[in-house]
Amino acid sequence: MEGRNIALTLRFDGSAYHGWQIQPGLPTVCQTVTDALESLYGQKITLTGCGRTDAGVHAERYAANFRGPAHIPMERLPFALNAKLPRDIAALEARFVPDGFHATFSCVKKEYAYRLYRKPHRDPLLDGRALFWPYAVDLEAWRAAAAGFVGTHDFAAVRSQGTPVKSTVRTVYSFEVEREGPDRYAFRICANGFLYNMARAMAGTVLYRGLGKLRDVPELLAAADRRAAGPTAPPHGLYMTGVWYDS
Amino acid sequence: MEGRNIALTLRFDGSAYHGWQIQPGLPTVCQTVTDALESLYGQKITLTGCGRTDAGVHAERYAANFRGPAHIPMERLPFALNAKLPRDIAALEARFVPDGFHATFSCVKKEYAYRLYRKPHRDPLLDGRALFWPYAVDLEAWRAAAAGFVGTHDFAAVRSQGTPVKSTVRTVYSFEVEREGPDRYAFRICANGFLYNMARAMAGTVLYRGLGKLRDVPELLAAADRRAAGPTAPPHGLYMTGVWYDS
Repeated sequence: MEGRNIALTLRFDGSAYHGWQIQPGLPTVCQTVTDALESLYGQKITLTGCGRTDAGVHAERYAANFRGPAHIPMERLPFALNAKLPRDIAALEARFVPDGFHATFSCVKKEYAYRLYRKPHRDPLLDGRALFWPYAVDLEAWRAAAAGFVGTHDFAAVRSQGTPVKSTVRTVYSFEVEREGPDRYAFRICANGFLYNMARAMAGTVLYRGLGKLRDVPELLAAADRRAAGPTAPPHGLYMTGVWYDS
Repeated sequence: MEGRNIALTLRFDGSAYHGWQIQPGLPTVCQTVTDALESLYGQKITLTGCGRTDAGVHAERYAANFRGPAHIPMERLPFALNAKLPRDIAALEARFVPDGFHATFSCVKKEYAYRLYRKPHRDPLLDGRALFWPYAVDLEAWRAAAAGFVGTHDFAAVRSQGTPVKSTVRTVYSFEVEREGPDRYAFRICANGFLYNMARAMAGTVLYRGLGKLRDVPELLAAADRRAAGPTAPPHGLYMTGVWYDS
């Protein structure tokens, strides 16, 4: 294939998109960035992302790669691309990567943050960017539930049926409950991979554990029964916050 | 006039609105809240705000009052109203106030925050909520310029022509430059009143002083020449953050 292998770091507000993955007739982040790249280079571009994201999910840092001509310097590429991208998507960085680099398959670790705010009334300034949680906050229960997910487990209990996968075993490296402001919280989850809806189902399970519902997380994981775990939390609270590659 | 005098505290994302003030055929915050109140009470309501806001300006706390029936308890009113309001406007509080209370004329102090972020690329997650400032940040120069506005002055140099006013003298109680995150800043301005576009023109002047442009703020104020001061900063960085009333 012609051209150099180029990795992009993107940031986006996913509210207006049907997720990353191209779907005919629907606005998606991949299609929008592909259109901008094709307009910039004047040729067909195939863009590969680090993974699917659901409709409405955001990204602080999302990684993608494509093969393209080398004539635009890498430090200029984000500026050139941002001039063509809509306001809800931006390129932060671009760099040449080895030919073997593949945004999906070379990925060794991903991080998501699930954001929520605890206030009596919904907040128009956080609408679409964090979950409105007017219920009790029990940080101790949240942290205990979060800790239950850490480690190498079968995560079948917290995934939705989607694309078939060979294995539902993943390793969660960390799952921290952070305060991001007086009434704002984030669940920060780092893993070697995430099953379909896994981050959102883990967030829903932690929240429900905080309400004194459901069984212990180790029991839920052992039962491998999606219906026994918590609900899939809404997409607008979820952010991809980091992607890691070997070397 | 019938009914009790009721004060509301509102919060809104102003992106979709042509400001507070009702304008025929245009979506405004006042019209939207009035519609929700009329739907709730089943009668005509006249809503008075604490001041005009420009198209695209946001509010963390905005005060308004109206006369209405007393049958909905004040602690319930925000919930009932929020069920009828669109997602970009919410009521935070409601309370009965003395008959003489008028959201515009009883106001003794207002606070605005002007938010900006300094990054090389525009940030889709802050788009429409803070000014994208890819230029130099000189906190010392910003703070010196801000301090120049504090006190009782003729602010004709930093207002746009609008509704005629008796006097262009106002008292700025404080003008602080705050860090709100690693790359985020807020200009927080407290005054007994703001002329048309005054907060935005002060923000533009501080930013331009930071680039080493313009004369000293005291000189600019003394000259009372709008063209000599900085540009009117865009509306989407501006938030009304507080309103104060006597007792």
